[in-house]
Amino acid sequence: MSQRALSVSRMTGNRSTFAQWYQAVVREADMAEPSPVRGAMVIKPWGYGVWEEMQRDLDRRIKETGHENAYFPLFIPLSFIAKEAEHVEGFAKEMAVVTHHRLKNIAGKLGPDPDAELEEPYVVRPTSETIIGDAFSRWIKSYRDLPVLLNQWANVVRWELRPRLFLRTTEFLWQEGHTAHSTAKEALEETMRMLEVYRAFAEETLALPVIAGEKPENERFPGAVNTYSIEAMMQDGKALQAGTSHFLGTHFAEAQNIRFQNETGELTYCNTTSWGLSTRMIGGVIMTHGDDDGLRLPPAVAPRQVVIVPMLRDKPEDAQVLTFANELVNALRATRAFDERVRVLLDTRATKSADKRWNWVRRGAPLIVEIGPRDAAAGQVTFMRRDALRDGDKIKSHQLAHDAFVATVPALLAEIQTTLFKEAKTRLDANIKTDITTFEALAAYFGAGGDDDESGEFRGWVRAPWCKPGGKELEAIDAKLKSFKLTLRNAPLDQPRTFGPCIFMGTPGVEEVLISRAY
Amino acid sequence: MSQRALSVSRMTGNRSTFAQWYQAVVREADMAEPSPVRGAMVIKPWGYGVWEEMQRDLDRRIKETGHENAYFPLFIPLSFIAKEAEHVEGFAKEMAVVTHHRLKNIAGKLGPDPDAELEEPYVVRPTSETIIGDAFSRWIKSYRDLPVLLNQWANVVRWELRPRLFLRTTEFLWQEGHTAHSTAKEALEETMRMLEVYRAFAEETLALPVIAGEKPENERFPGAVNTYSIEAMMQDGKALQAGTSHFLGTHFAEAQNIRFQNETGELTYCNTTSWGLSTRMIGGVIMTHGDDDGLRLPPAVAPRQVVIVPMLRDKPEDAQVLTFANELVNALRATRAFDERVRVLLDTRATKSADKRWNWVRRGAPLIVEIGPRDAAAGQVTFMRRDALRDGDKIKSHQLAHDAFVATVPALLAEIQTTLFKEAKTRLDANIKTDITTFEALAAYFGAGGDDDESGEFRGWVRAPWCKPGGKELEAIDAKLKSFKLTLRNAPLDQPRTFGPCIFMGTPGVEEVLISRAY
Repeated sequence: MSQRALSVSRMTGNRSTFAQWYQAVVREADMAEPSPVRGAMVIKPWGYGVWEEMQRDLDRRIKETGHENAYFPLFIPLSFIAKEAEHVEGFAKEMAVVTHHRLKNIAGKLGPDPDAELEEPYVVRPTSETIIGDAFSRWIKSYRDLPVLLNQWANVVRWELRPRLFLRTTEFLWQEGHTAHSTAKEALEETMRMLEVYRAFAEETLALPVIAGEKPENERFPGAVNTYSIEAMMQDGKALQAGTSHFLGTHFAEAQNIRFQNETGELTYCNTTSWGLSTRMIGGVIMTHGDDDGLRLPPAVAPRQVVIVPMLRDKPEDAQVLTFANELVNALRATRAFDERVRVLLDTRATKSADKRWNWVRRGAPLIVEIGPRDAAAGQVTFMRRDALRDGDKIKSHQLAHDAFVATVPALLAEIQTTLFKEAKTRLDANIKTDITTFEALAAYFGAGGDDDESGEFRGWVRAPWCKPGGKELEAIDAKLKSFKLTLRNAPLDQPRTFGPCIFMGTPGVEEVLISRAY
Repeated sequence: MSQRALSVSRMTGNRSTFAQWYQAVVREADMAEPSPVRGAMVIKPWGYGVWEEMQRDLDRRIKETGHENAYFPLFIPLSFIAKEAEHVEGFAKEMAVVTHHRLKNIAGKLGPDPDAELEEPYVVRPTSETIIGDAFSRWIKSYRDLPVLLNQWANVVRWELRPRLFLRTTEFLWQEGHTAHSTAKEALEETMRMLEVYRAFAEETLALPVIAGEKPENERFPGAVNTYSIEAMMQDGKALQAGTSHFLGTHFAEAQNIRFQNETGELTYCNTTSWGLSTRMIGGVIMTHGDDDGLRLPPAVAPRQVVIVPMLRDKPEDAQVLTFANELVNALRATRAFDERVRVLLDTRATKSADKRWNWVRRGAPLIVEIGPRDAAAGQVTFMRRDALRDGDKIKSHQLAHDAFVATVPALLAEIQTTLFKEAKTRLDANIKTDITTFEALAAYFGAGGDDDESGEFRGWVRAPWCKPGGKELEAIDAKLKSFKLTLRNAPLDQPRTFGPCIFMGTPGVEEVLISRAY
């Protein structure tokens, strides 16, 4: 095999190599890097640019479904968390705690000033149900005030013991929706509406095929009546939970006294929802679309959809090359793709053009154009498609006359978007096994291996009927699955009419559930 | 005087009333409210909507000048701050300190887990020079890597003892630019370029006339060689520093070892800059454009530029009214103003139309349309301009045929934007006194009164020559000014050729400086 842009391949069928490959892509595509703050990352311009495009698109979808953005405090009084802890079992306690509001130089060493200890510590928000619920309890008085449909773009902090860039970081960026309704029915409709917004966003904008479904009881958000998720399959077969939507019933409303006077004058608890999607999704894009040459970005979220590398040699022809390249930039900027102006960059950095080309290959720019003196003279454009970079091992390049290229760019970008989706969809569909009917067969299929099992082959997901047990029975199943590093992902919304026996208990099945390893 | 939409007037010539008026506008316009977290605010959807429009416009300007966005950690290791404290005199120590990473239930009470104390505390970023400088020191190796031109949109925390919504809050939102250059000349050019970006943004987008200039030594950002600001005049005559741009020379580069190999192979310190603009600016918009009926928003940043209130009476004509109103929404959405689609809202809330009208008056929507059965039948549009709401005491309404209204909306919005700017510019120009030549005259002009002096009349600014002293001399002047609650604002960029004697010392003047009360 010829040289690839990365030194490590994702497809050796070996989990630890896949993890190395992931790190290599994140690094070589200039997406992010570890920071001096434990578990927190620096999101570099190219990575943040992807997030900006994701934000723009998802924000539009959130607003089109009637929500408004607002902003609530970063800090949450400890008493709010304590109240939630009383009402909600199993809530996580790994949070950053602010205890002082001043530094002081004591004996030549800077530290928290003992005279500036907070009477009540603050927690850095891990999520904002409590602080937003507090506002809801003040704002909502009558049925006329409902529904309240809010969204917040924010940073949140959850202490992570085993951080991984984008996938699990102590601080991450996300949007969190919070809504209040007069009836359970409306709140559940909202929960499903936002799940569908996430599905459409993942599939249409990120080219990420997902399966939407309901989380089993043991995977619910603490305090939720139902939790729904979209699950995406990574190239190592593992699942990535890529967005969640929670129907909270009246649980949070009761803890926080969110009540309204209904049309007959009765004081009634609201039904609330929350839903979130984070920078973790960027990890999903990388692990779904990346290849051994680096990242491949869906054009809809590529910060630059067309990158033009002028081949300059400090010769008189350079002027002609630059004139031609600049003219091409202007022509492309006047065209539209995905209902936006095409995003073009002319890369004039003072480095070798071959280095620039490979840099853009690794970063995953959808169309990479190289303009040399011959192109400029002939009025032609030589370009590579990042979704189909090679013909066998060789780099495949295409040529079109200037005007033909400009005219075809919107269609090319749309085609690349579709190709990436189809590739991933084919992989997803081909890797959901439906013929495993017993736990023994399940265990045999996946084997013992987890991340450390270098010999473990990539496995996809298993879809099997189960009897949807709860409580202790579910706990036992969960523990058994965990010993094989397996988890229940979700029960897809799309279900057959009849079911075989439960894969765990042999009792009559009531729905099908997805089982797999997961991030 | 007839009834106004607010219960308190800004123009009684009385400072404490102005403060009450400001609070009333923030509250009645649904912009923000205090939160349970000391000094932090909840930014409500209408207030956050203004911030989103500001962000979008300023972000475009920042990108057009060659900068890229990135994201750095919220937390800063204490050692970074300690290193800065060694190099930088006078840096503020009022910061939120994170000391623990877990909560624990101890004897029935939730608190920081003593076993989860951080080895090194983290500070919640008050600004990001140190954490970004750390990245620069890793990223920058050669002159080829320069300039580095980054910007970050983020929340920051600075403990405030006397918080005030938007103007001084413990947590606020801002953008902070951070750049590194190979020469001082380039870095200073960058500093001035971004000052000009802020000036243009304030004047063109927020209709806020400002004076750009250099801060005197005592008002510099700690560690800066020069600090520049734009200063805006509020309706009570006080100055609001509305954006700052710092030339940091090699101070931060030396503290953080940000070095590059120059073209001759020598290891050289970078020159760096930083510049920031925050949600404080929203307070400036309110105090500049608000009136006794509430807020008046510049159309360029109004979340909704045209609000349509249908006058519904539970009668058969309602259907016709809604059809007409919906058609108008669609027609308006197809038009453009300020290079964007016109932002229209049809307010279908289940409250009285008169209440809705006044709600939009208080919120400052630029054009408020009321559609009744007669309008619908006649195909006409009745509307109010928020910039010119009244004729004497009466509300002034206008009528235009449907098509004429739709065609004229872009021009109307542009005109409102211009009117707001001109009003504020006239006030600014009329309230800079240039005939005060001694400190005694200055003191007599402003009087002793500060916020508590209810009899104190509104005063604008004084522009006077000074000899630009530094060190102890400047400290003495600053102390004298402070005893009258006065501050040096900036030395405007635009200076005459010759100067009278220094207002403070009688010595020959070298530049003119602005003196005023300030937020």
